[in-house]
Amino acid sequence: MLPASVQLRDVGPRDGLQPEAPVEPAARARLVELLVAAGLRHVEVAAFVSPRAVPAMAGAAEVVAALERHDGVTYAALVPNDRGAELALAAGVDELTFTLSASETYNERNVRMPVAASLEQLEAICERAGAVPVDTVVSCAFGSPYEGEVDPEDVMALVRAVYDAGSARVTLADTTGMATPRRIDDLLDLTGNDVGLHLHDTRGTALVNAYAAMLRGVRRFDTAVGGLGGSPFAHGAGGNLATEDLVHLCDDIGVATGVDLDALLAVSAWLGGLVGRPVPSRVAAHGPRTRRAAGEG
Amino acid sequence: MLPASVQLRDVGPRDGLQPEAPVEPAARARLVELLVAAGLRHVEVAAFVSPRAVPAMAGAAEVVAALERHDGVTYAALVPNDRGAELALAAGVDELTFTLSASETYNERNVRMPVAASLEQLEAICERAGAVPVDTVVSCAFGSPYEGEVDPEDVMALVRAVYDAGSARVTLADTTGMATPRRIDDLLDLTGNDVGLHLHDTRGTALVNAYAAMLRGVRRFDTAVGGLGGSPFAHGAGGNLATEDLVHLCDDIGVATGVDLDALLAVSAWLGGLVGRPVPSRVAAHGPRTRRAAGEG
Repeated sequence: MLPASVQLRDVGPRDGLQPEAPVEPAARARLVELLVAAGLRHVEVAAFVSPRAVPAMAGAAEVVAALERHDGVTYAALVPNDRGAELALAAGVDELTFTLSASETYNERNVRMPVAASLEQLEAICERAGAVPVDTVVSCAFGSPYEGEVDPEDVMALVRAVYDAGSARVTLADTTGMATPRRIDDLLDLTGNDVGLHLHDTRGTALVNAYAAMLRGVRRFDTAVGGLGGSPFAHGAGGNLATEDLVHLCDDIGVATGVDLDALLAVSAWLGGLVGRPVPSRVAAHGPRTRRAAGEG
Repeated sequence: MLPASVQLRDVGPRDGLQPEAPVEPAARARLVELLVAAGLRHVEVAAFVSPRAVPAMAGAAEVVAALERHDGVTYAALVPNDRGAELALAAGVDELTFTLSASETYNERNVRMPVAASLEQLEAICERAGAVPVDTVVSCAFGSPYEGEVDPEDVMALVRAVYDAGSARVTLADTTGMATPRRIDDLLDLTGNDVGLHLHDTRGTALVNAYAAMLRGVRRFDTAVGGLGGSPFAHGAGGNLATEDLVHLCDDIGVATGVDLDALLAVSAWLGGLVGRPVPSRVAAHGPRTRRAAGEG
């Protein structure tokens, strides 16, 4: 049974642009504005991380300051630690996203600390955030490129710890494209469907996984305009589920997203110009199913 | 409810190679042999068409003659007309595939005759084929790039006419990637699930459509090793559902295919060498979900 509607959080300005050559804060703010104009009501606009560690995310406060804020839109920012949370809250974001991993090795590689230490960071961030909600993204929730299979029971234990630390929401991330509909079902059996999903298309499975999750009633999805993201060393290959690809599917299967697909495709084309190559999205490349052959009625 | 197993017909040697620069018959026969060695039990090996019209399919009889035949394997060939059927039957294939379209305009463009005339051709072919089964592939069954939406009732009327003409089986084709799970459901409501599906990945929806069809109990799928196929003017963009991508999914969701994924990926890599570029399949590009990060356990 499909939900009547889903809420998309476009992570393009953050997860999408993170592996790219740095783009000026003004252009990143412009991307956010264009997404909101296309109907997105939730956008991850920046990451308050060290500009030495992630040059493409430099100027996070400038991005947020440059935004014209709209009622009913949630402007989120990724924070890796308490210092990042302090800066993001000072900038005035509506939501903090925080990442920790179901894979110890991935956590060490990504944030250079054990998962237990990440949970302590999360607790400090939630305390500081007060009324600003924290959404914790659990990476490698459907498998790890290091340890291999990840037991759903272990993910569920981590989800409980994340809520105990004060997180308002949890998003399950398929960081390296290891999920399949069976893995989605197995984990949702434990977590229930009040979770977000953050899917990567490394192996071409992002859309089928989103569909399987919608059949289970999941209503929150992270997507990135154009399908950017993933490894900077494999452009177009391991990116996020493209916002336009999910909107295109939802439009035809009767799941409301609030997003205007034509407007979004214009944003996606503009973004391709910004990053200097066509974006990976297949719908961006070939147009929606309603597009007719050239010269035909 | 997923089926316990599905039967894959690899159309790579035909639909996959058709838009490519011509490959020698011996290499096309070798591709068939490698697919059979990887576990495929049904392969579309050639098209008995005019070599002037489709240079890449020249030498169809040589391809069939070069094959070492294996028990339990069905070697199929596409025939566009009665003359093609005569040649294919003389070469000794096990199944004929014939294409007509749910779109009048597409039928005119593809075979230069109205659908009614294609049905007459089909009748002649079935009569000639005798005990050799004919599988009729109904193209544009989920929409047409010319007329737009195609009414499932009209497709069903055509399916009935196809059976009346003597066809043993019917395969519904999403020729230009216009299907979605809803379109799959709507058409299967009329046809039942004893049909084949031939899906193209133009808009990244081939896998989700296959999954939706499997949930409805469909057990026959056309796929192409590497995901080749589609327009010669948009390489890697509009190809067939890649055999390895469907096998990869089925392996993890518990649907038996009989195909050895590692062996198939070796075939796919070999095929990339044959066509001179990496094949479009995402699983071929990134490896199965069971692959670990380099240097890790």
